[in-house]
Amino acid sequence: MTSGEDKLIARFFKPLATHPGALGLSDDAAILEPPAGHELVLKTDAITGGVHFFPDDAPDLIARKALRVNLSDLAAKGAKPVGFLLTLALPSSIDEQWLGKFSAGLQADAQAQGCPLFGGDTIATLGPVTISIFALGSVPRGAMVKRSGAKPGDRVVVTGTIGDAALGLTIRKEPGAAQSWKLDARLRDHLIGRYLLPQPRLGLAEALRTHASAAMDVSDGLAGDLTKLCGVSGVSAEIGVGSVPLSAAAQRALASDARLIETILTGGDDYEILCTVRPDELPAFRARAAAADIAVTDIGVVVAGKDEPRFVDAGGAALVFSRKSFSHF
Amino acid sequence: MTSGEDKLIARFFKPLATHPGALGLSDDAAILEPPAGHELVLKTDAITGGVHFFPDDAPDLIARKALRVNLSDLAAKGAKPVGFLLTLALPSSIDEQWLGKFSAGLQADAQAQGCPLFGGDTIATLGPVTISIFALGSVPRGAMVKRSGAKPGDRVVVTGTIGDAALGLTIRKEPGAAQSWKLDARLRDHLIGRYLLPQPRLGLAEALRTHASAAMDVSDGLAGDLTKLCGVSGVSAEIGVGSVPLSAAAQRALASDARLIETILTGGDDYEILCTVRPDELPAFRARAAAADIAVTDIGVVVAGKDEPRFVDAGGAALVFSRKSFSHF
Repeated sequence: MTSGEDKLIARFFKPLATHPGALGLSDDAAILEPPAGHELVLKTDAITGGVHFFPDDAPDLIARKALRVNLSDLAAKGAKPVGFLLTLALPSSIDEQWLGKFSAGLQADAQAQGCPLFGGDTIATLGPVTISIFALGSVPRGAMVKRSGAKPGDRVVVTGTIGDAALGLTIRKEPGAAQSWKLDARLRDHLIGRYLLPQPRLGLAEALRTHASAAMDVSDGLAGDLTKLCGVSGVSAEIGVGSVPLSAAAQRALASDARLIETILTGGDDYEILCTVRPDELPAFRARAAAADIAVTDIGVVVAGKDEPRFVDAGGAALVFSRKSFSHF
Repeated sequence: MTSGEDKLIARFFKPLATHPGALGLSDDAAILEPPAGHELVLKTDAITGGVHFFPDDAPDLIARKALRVNLSDLAAKGAKPVGFLLTLALPSSIDEQWLGKFSAGLQADAQAQGCPLFGGDTIATLGPVTISIFALGSVPRGAMVKRSGAKPGDRVVVTGTIGDAALGLTIRKEPGAAQSWKLDARLRDHLIGRYLLPQPRLGLAEALRTHASAAMDVSDGLAGDLTKLCGVSGVSAEIGVGSVPLSAAAQRALASDARLIETILTGGDDYEILCTVRPDELPAFRARAAAADIAVTDIGVVVAGKDEPRFVDAGGAALVFSRKSFSHF
């Protein structure tokens, strides 16, 4: 008598619902109260086949990317993951094998990040697989790191390396690109891996709350996202292009084709953290990042003004981009 | 420099983000703390074109249905709406006129129900319009009405009328159905309207918290949903088919074709509330419902046992359904 939908939920998703407030996914809704003195941070991001991932990507990686793009936002806001809800639109081509891999990938990340499933909705669709995740985090009351706090004189800092995922996506679309950039298999796979599986910088959340004046995650390209942060903060910025941290693979590609700097600085899917830090806070922030084993790099300075941030090359000239960031529309 | 996505959000969705914790949709995430002594109720439901609505349905009604199916769950749980997040997957065929109507419909309901927008994600899709809503409500700590509290002897109660939306959907699919059921235009439009625009019973939330032993909303058909409630509560139920409240339109249709009782009792999209109430609580519950101008009908009794609930006709025979409820899979 149990419906197919109920069976699917019980088999594939109930094991992820480890929080008592999820009621084992046996009710219409879940119950959640933030820890005393804390408030919740709410975020939603969706991904869909043919746009954010390739239909033949491994289902476990699709699931993990769907969750991680949300966790990346929580990290940038200084929040600790609390849990998530999921809506999953499935075309008829999806079988139990795909769902098994999808839910196993989701479960692995949910467990590793302490972010259990609180509920969801599974629907049939005439379109591609579409995954919407609603992530909840918690921060001490009033402590969420906003985009709006950057002040002139603050240093502009990014985690990890920039541009890898955009180059990885280019390789996925144009398989000859890796060869033309003189990348060996290891460097090529590094870029593709960075596209497939973001690394949310949750280990930096507390340091951001303590030391950052503003932060956001870099999901739509560094140049465009910095422009958004500066816009909300009412400031501008000056970035040294040569200071932007690049992986060995991105450096090699850039050496082969200098025009790739635009892909690197404006392409999406980095899922690194962009933040601003007062100069006197920077040493302590660096120490906390090092303790968390997360690379952070000072790439420039916040300046007064309403101009768009400038990306200045070694010769002192500002780069001009044909477009600043990824946008769906 | 603002991206198309940012412009779209500013124009169509920022007016809905009236809660200060939404930060005017200018940040990556929103901030929310439940009222003191309260906990949050979390719910997500998604709808997609060609499955839950027809692509040519009015965009404002699609938006309102997407929100209302979630509000219906909050009502059934005894929760007061706090806010919602939205992910919207849009095919390239969607234009600004469609979006304007969609956001206007959403805004009307968000305002009327006190349920502002806290955030969202708008993505391009190769498939049909897909709308995922994550709704948050609040209840006094420990007061959420679960599915699991029904006890033998409790009365089984439903709000409103049952089966209208399923009959309305049948008419949408088979335009000749209304005529064969001898429905005039007014009765036909009543059924179609019930399919297009659910009425979440939020006015009953407090009465449910006070008087109901268990509750859920009827979204996948009364028979199947009652089976779920009984299953989680570890009980069975006996329902008088003749007691199930039907609209004038449904009564007329049923008089024309007695087989429609299965569509009425097992079809989806009612978005009424199914609850169980101790007999001694029933008068007070009825009075509260009357004060809220929400019809409630006693349709049967919870009984001990693990059998599936029985729907008994006037002759004392139990109906046998070919399927108990709507399921996507």
